[in-house]
Amino acid sequence: MTGTVYLVGAGPGAPDLLTLRAARLLGEADIVFHDALVPQEMLQLAEKAILVPVGKRCGQHSTSQRFINKRLADAARRHQVVVRLKGGDPMLFGRAQEEIAFLKKNRIRVEVVPGITTASAASAQLGVSLTLRGVSRSVVFATPRAGDGEERSAWSKAVAAADTAALYMAAHDAQAVRDELLRAGLRPETPVVVAENISLPGEQTRGLLLKELTSLKAEGPVLLLFGEVFAQEVEAGARIARTASQAA
Amino acid sequence: MTGTVYLVGAGPGAPDLLTLRAARLLGEADIVFHDALVPQEMLQLAEKAILVPVGKRCGQHSTSQRFINKRLADAARRHQVVVRLKGGDPMLFGRAQEEIAFLKKNRIRVEVVPGITTASAASAQLGVSLTLRGVSRSVVFATPRAGDGEERSAWSKAVAAADTAALYMAAHDAQAVRDELLRAGLRPETPVVVAENISLPGEQTRGLLLKELTSLKAEGPVLLLFGEVFAQEVEAGARIARTASQAA
Repeated sequence: MTGTVYLVGAGPGAPDLLTLRAARLLGEADIVFHDALVPQEMLQLAEKAILVPVGKRCGQHSTSQRFINKRLADAARRHQVVVRLKGGDPMLFGRAQEEIAFLKKNRIRVEVVPGITTASAASAQLGVSLTLRGVSRSVVFATPRAGDGEERSAWSKAVAAADTAALYMAAHDAQAVRDELLRAGLRPETPVVVAENISLPGEQTRGLLLKELTSLKAEGPVLLLFGEVFAQEVEAGARIARTASQAA
Repeated sequence: MTGTVYLVGAGPGAPDLLTLRAARLLGEADIVFHDALVPQEMLQLAEKAILVPVGKRCGQHSTSQRFINKRLADAARRHQVVVRLKGGDPMLFGRAQEEIAFLKKNRIRVEVVPGITTASAASAQLGVSLTLRGVSRSVVFATPRAGDGEERSAWSKAVAAADTAALYMAAHDAQAVRDELLRAGLRPETPVVVAENISLPGEQTRGLLLKELTSLKAEGPVLLLFGEVFAQEVEAGARIARTASQAA
């Protein structure tokens, strides 16, 4: 008799953006394997669980992923309720599939609990809908971060074809992202929002034009948003910049 | 002194896929305007609130949207906590922007609380990640449903350019959707999942190939998923169909 492994989305970071189901499972958990970015307040819901931090959400090497897989399987042989708590939504850039495949191969029950993805929370914070009648009927979530041997540029075609786009794990290479998107056909004047620490302390959003996007020094997680729906954010940003330069 | 209008995502339907923040706001609400599809169990969280059903999520006419806008503004002049509870995520095909714009114009405070969108919940239920190293680095959420005067086909180009796609409000015209996607360049063998009543009683998912997609008679909300990540769902579906025909 083995237990069940629950791959649970922690959402963008604010503890109260966890789902009721996720909160209940944390309360029932015997052991919780969590990303390093998951806030302490959320882990306190896991009252009776052993807490095991298992590294960052991105930048994991496949060796450490293999190690996590093995630890999850071992835990399910000893505990009834094993929670793997992952930032955002497990099924969007969460590398959940590797854990699911490994656990299924080892005949361990897996359930996935969806989480709020950062793009939804950023959109809510901005008060700007990702879709909008007459302006945006499609929104793409993509990452420029390549796996081994993957084609480098298909993501930019997907961004160029959609009306609105959210790019995950892109801040590090923001300048290369800009160049690639311009090559893919985005206008230099495409509105961009840099959304940092969404739903966390230090949350900030900044509007600019694609041609103005340069490498970002960000301390927290960053999401890049693109599309005409953000035009007003860029105008507002320009107004603030003008006011500041007039005051100076 | 006017109150605040909270545009709150109800998620895909299961009451425990509500966020903790949404549940708290329902408990504090003086009045709740809710979509017809929101389940009763969720509304019971709004213990002290007046409950006002305001029609379906899709298929609203602009006159009724105007009527909802006005009722929200009126309510904020009489109550401190006004909740507008919308299926899924308010910022994805939720027509939230029309309500936000109207309320801001009337100087009423608006906050948006994100919700789990159906594509996330469907992916979790299937145990199939929307993104997958080496297979899918982009996922597009789109709708074939056109607003007035909108270009009919841009959504299909967005679907064709992304690795994975989720189509909302598409079941009604599934055959036209198939034809348009084939014209946009999708292979006839593209794996498709028809996901119905996700997270609700009567939940079911069915794998097939794009060329096999015909008009669907669905009683509950339907999401269509497309992409190579769903290949195993289609194989599993074919196995079940073969077993059934052998038994017959």
